[in-house]
Amino acid sequence: MSGLLYLDDLAIGRRFGSATKVVDESEITSFAKRFDPQPFHLDREAATNSRFGGLVASGWHTVAMTMRLLVHSEFRIAGGIVGTGFDEFRWITPVHPGDTLRLETEVIDVRRSTRKPAQGLVKVRITTLNQNSEPVQILLANLVVPSRSARPISGK
Amino acid sequence: MSGLLYLDDLAIGRRFGSATKVVDESEITSFAKRFDPQPFHLDREAATNSRFGGLVASGWHTVAMTMRLLVHSEFRIAGGIVGTGFDEFRWITPVHPGDTLRLETEVIDVRRSTRKPAQGLVKVRITTLNQNSEPVQILLANLVVPSRSARPISGK
Repeated sequence: MSGLLYLDDLAIGRRFGSATKVVDESEITSFAKRFDPQPFHLDREAATNSRFGGLVASGWHTVAMTMRLLVHSEFRIAGGIVGTGFDEFRWITPVHPGDTLRLETEVIDVRRSTRKPAQGLVKVRITTLNQNSEPVQILLANLVVPSRSARPISGK
Repeated sequence: MSGLLYLDDLAIGRRFGSATKVVDESEITSFAKRFDPQPFHLDREAATNSRFGGLVASGWHTVAMTMRLLVHSEFRIAGGIVGTGFDEFRWITPVHPGDTLRLETEVIDVRRSTRKPAQGLVKVRITTLNQNSEPVQILLANLVVPSRSARPISGK
């Protein structure tokens, strides 16, 4: 269980990095076929005539790749990463085949629950950046995080 | 091109339904393996000891299924469904294997762009409901929508 983070460990301003992920063209099109079958995500030629001028990843694919990087990052929350929603959610720059993504995660707020003192609400800003360090996506996420006194529900 | 919606067609209050999607357990676990490998999404037994008390779909899987239902719904925007982000994004109730999902999409606001008069910003509330008509997810999405004068960038 070592290395798992509890509410007690998360101070405002604490930052976490991630590994990187190279975005593969076949992954873009196979995700799109399954979940977001629109020409600019499916087919290089059709995409050249779209508003994007070329093939781009579905925003939902970008966010799914973000989640995978987050789960495997050092931001290892006891009981898992359990979100209730987002105060902010923006796609800023399209993600293209060959881009390399990485995350910067920063703790923005930490509040113990008054109703359920064994847990709290943590706000984190998860910025997904490309190889030019341009943000492609910014999420301000609300997460439910157990405190150390709540180990029985840690889910591992 | 018939049936495609332009900015000019979208009045506040206009509503769109969708088909339904039965959530399959193997789809939940295979999505999770790929993008959100946490015990409560991966494995029925591990999930019983988690805060959810049973296997639940990743929120990212729910939103991806939502996108697929939306793309195939009557909400067919010329040039595709292109989101810039969300004013609201909430997961309300977990999605379990066997649940049946459907969407209710409502136009909340329509504004022509002053900088780019050939397009506009449309806010839509996309509510994903389960078989008991409980909302499981609410998105208030900002979409870029071309006006009829902008057909060359329609992307089809």
